[in-house]
Amino acid sequence: MRRPDPTPKAITSLQNERVKLIRSLEMRKARRDTGLFVAEGASLLIMAREAGWVPKMLVFLAGAASGGVTKDLVQWAMRADAECLEVSEAVLAKIAAKENPQSVLGVFEQRWHKPAFVGEPAGDALWVALEAVRDPGNLGTIIRTADAVAASGIILVGNTVDPFSREAVRASMGSIFNMPLVRQQPEEFAGLAKRWKGLIVGTHLDARKDFRAQPFDRPAILLMGSEGPGLSDQLKATCTDLVKIPMAGKLDSLNLAVATALLLYEARKASLKL
Amino acid sequence: MRRPDPTPKAITSLQNERVKLIRSLEMRKARRDTGLFVAEGASLLIMAREAGWVPKMLVFLAGAASGGVTKDLVQWAMRADAECLEVSEAVLAKIAAKENPQSVLGVFEQRWHKPAFVGEPAGDALWVALEAVRDPGNLGTIIRTADAVAASGIILVGNTVDPFSREAVRASMGSIFNMPLVRQQPEEFAGLAKRWKGLIVGTHLDARKDFRAQPFDRPAILLMGSEGPGLSDQLKATCTDLVKIPMAGKLDSLNLAVATALLLYEARKASLKL
Repeated sequence: MRRPDPTPKAITSLQNERVKLIRSLEMRKARRDTGLFVAEGASLLIMAREAGWVPKMLVFLAGAASGGVTKDLVQWAMRADAECLEVSEAVLAKIAAKENPQSVLGVFEQRWHKPAFVGEPAGDALWVALEAVRDPGNLGTIIRTADAVAASGIILVGNTVDPFSREAVRASMGSIFNMPLVRQQPEEFAGLAKRWKGLIVGTHLDARKDFRAQPFDRPAILLMGSEGPGLSDQLKATCTDLVKIPMAGKLDSLNLAVATALLLYEARKASLKL
Repeated sequence: MRRPDPTPKAITSLQNERVKLIRSLEMRKARRDTGLFVAEGASLLIMAREAGWVPKMLVFLAGAASGGVTKDLVQWAMRADAECLEVSEAVLAKIAAKENPQSVLGVFEQRWHKPAFVGEPAGDALWVALEAVRDPGNLGTIIRTADAVAASGIILVGNTVDPFSREAVRASMGSIFNMPLVRQQPEEFAGLAKRWKGLIVGTHLDARKDFRAQPFDRPAILLMGSEGPGLSDQLKATCTDLVKIPMAGKLDSLNLAVATALLLYEARKASLKL
């Protein structure tokens, strides 16, 4: 990519190559091929800025940057040598979300941490490992809750939805910029689990221990199974502890993001204070 | 409606009036005008059957009722004098969800309880009141979690999304058939709150009390504000107690379904056992 222009570039053509690129990022394949993703709306972009990210591109509705927060965001992006694109309503309508569209969006490079980033169990390390999570809203919500309890990060195990999809990014409410992400195949996670000296606490229907009886006095990985099937036998075998969330009535499961939140708040029970 | 035929009726025309009716139920207006809603998939229909509901119509893919659970469901529906419609793949594709379509769906009459159903605070009564909830996935997930802790029901206050929308019904995972629903305008809820002799615990950013310090030794209504704006001043004023969920870092909110789940599990802490 050539060096960006020092002033915003006006775009009104739907055929513009940048417009086509950003639209393509709705597809997982394009996100994978480019390593880019889109975050929409001023509040997410402010989270990105506070977390020290800089966009590759910033797109805003013509006229929106004359003042207020959008002006600040454009200045931030310009200082970072991002390409700033001032677009017409017609163009924005093509690249913004269909529901609740925003007048400013940023294109960022995805960040993936190497598995070695998980490191040794130390201090108050608390990771969330998710096996084959399928729902992008659940994944984004889990990233948001993990951020809320200052978890160490998220380990995506096996074939999961993309945390950089629009729906996941939106559900994360910007926490995607705060939470380190690691991805591994199940056998790689099994290797990491073998070396990990802390707890690996899995939720499983067969467990006999109430999750509130689980001590979280050591660094821990919370391991959650997929929506529906739950933890595979392969990953269940990596756990030091299996726990279960009690329920009344005939139900045997909670929403995955809800179950993960209950576990995260239990694990952080002693340290979270108002 | 004339008395249903005693055997399933085969439908292959997309112009069939029943097909048009069921398709129309994707619209909130049609659900309001008819008082009907759609639940898709065998697992939801089994929940309906276990909860004592009967469908007005049962629609299934041609051939699917020759055995297994769909056959059982058709027999259940026939015994209840429901109209049973055996449809072609083309017809099913028109009326089933676009994502993860199911081969059987039921049309049911909505059930709304009168505010008087909330009654006097007694026993382990625990209601969830939601002000102006906007996201159908959140609402469905809250209904599911409320069911999981054997809550008394859900009070929808003000302009909320429709709990009988497909997305809310699906997110409820069938708990829509177990949880009584009440709807009220804010001033009506304020009247109910005045008469209610138990706790009314609201979550609010201004609260100074950690939610884990809140005693739940009396019947309670948990009052949750809308995604984004939170509780209105009008409803905040109805609370006997205001609590807050502690968070690390800069975040000031959790997903609504997550926050409600944390409160529900706290309120049921003493009674839920494995």
